[in-house]
Amino acid sequence: MPLHLALVHYPIVDKTGRTVCTSVTNLDLHDLSRAATTYGADGVWIVHPYEAQKRFLQRVLRHWREGWGAQYNHTRRESLAATRLADDLAGVEEQITATEGRPPVFVGTSARRFGRSVSFGELRTRMEENPEECYCLVFGTGWGLHPETMEEMDLVLEPVYGTGKWNHLSVRAAVAIILDRLRGTERPERC
Amino acid sequence: MPLHLALVHYPIVDKTGRTVCTSVTNLDLHDLSRAATTYGADGVWIVHPYEAQKRFLQRVLRHWREGWGAQYNHTRRESLAATRLADDLAGVEEQITATEGRPPVFVGTSARRFGRSVSFGELRTRMEENPEECYCLVFGTGWGLHPETMEEMDLVLEPVYGTGKWNHLSVRAAVAIILDRLRGTERPERC
Repeated sequence: MPLHLALVHYPIVDKTGRTVCTSVTNLDLHDLSRAATTYGADGVWIVHPYEAQKRFLQRVLRHWREGWGAQYNHTRRESLAATRLADDLAGVEEQITATEGRPPVFVGTSARRFGRSVSFGELRTRMEENPEECYCLVFGTGWGLHPETMEEMDLVLEPVYGTGKWNHLSVRAAVAIILDRLRGTERPERC
Repeated sequence: MPLHLALVHYPIVDKTGRTVCTSVTNLDLHDLSRAATTYGADGVWIVHPYEAQKRFLQRVLRHWREGWGAQYNHTRRESLAATRLADDLAGVEEQITATEGRPPVFVGTSARRFGRSVSFGELRTRMEENPEECYCLVFGTGWGLHPETMEEMDLVLEPVYGTGKWNHLSVRAAVAIILDRLRGTERPERC
């Protein structure tokens, strides 16, 4: 079952609720790609509308995929092999559809609860029982995905909670936990 | 059951196996503290022997705990409230013993498998059945904890694997996944 991740930098809300565009974070690129490779995901999409930011990302990707970094650390070359750029989620959908032969089911993520959210168990079961489907988990930077983006999602995943109500995880941590909950192999042994 | 995390910068191995001291990474401070607070951990220990690095960390901590950052983003103030510095793990042990009234059970983590490792299920069960015990999960930077440090651990946790053998997660991702596997509340609903 093909699984992709998308990290959105616009449109994003800031802590006052305003619509903003965030800058790229180098460690997001690495941490998301390393987690995606660990959990067998098929693609990581860095979504940014600005040419200058995409040029920066392309330069970082070239360093680790073809440049000096590829020799220095082969695990970075391997983890970034399936990392791609897109202007917006429509571009992600178009490129995934072209390579996977079907459009992805977009799954929005948020630290806040939405009325129509699916649980981790429900999504994991749906993924396992429908191997012909293709999924794209969508993550926000800043203070999260814009409400209009959430409205456009096919599914919305329940938030990650720890032991209480405080759940201000970094997007790097949230991506790792969500991939482990949806694809991790440790769980079945415990059940 | 008290739970602490320690992030070690020396002694660490680099990719050739040499013993090195790594520089601090600002996002490690935030990501580990945010994950620790989400999962109700009682302390995060940043372990570094160099005064200059500790001064930098203290300055960052002051910014978010007392300075302008504390007003700008209260979630950072909250997450960094229980983040402390130490020269080495002996210092961590001393300070935890002083505050918790008992020395911690040190649990080493590694991306490589050690013969005597405990599984996530075993450690979770041990933690739940022994609320009088205090634990400190120990994480390495660079290419991981030094073999001598691993030898000194009371327990060694099995590695995090995703869907295959490739498991080059960032320490930020590994901390998040390990906390979720040991303390996450989503799992019982699924079993």
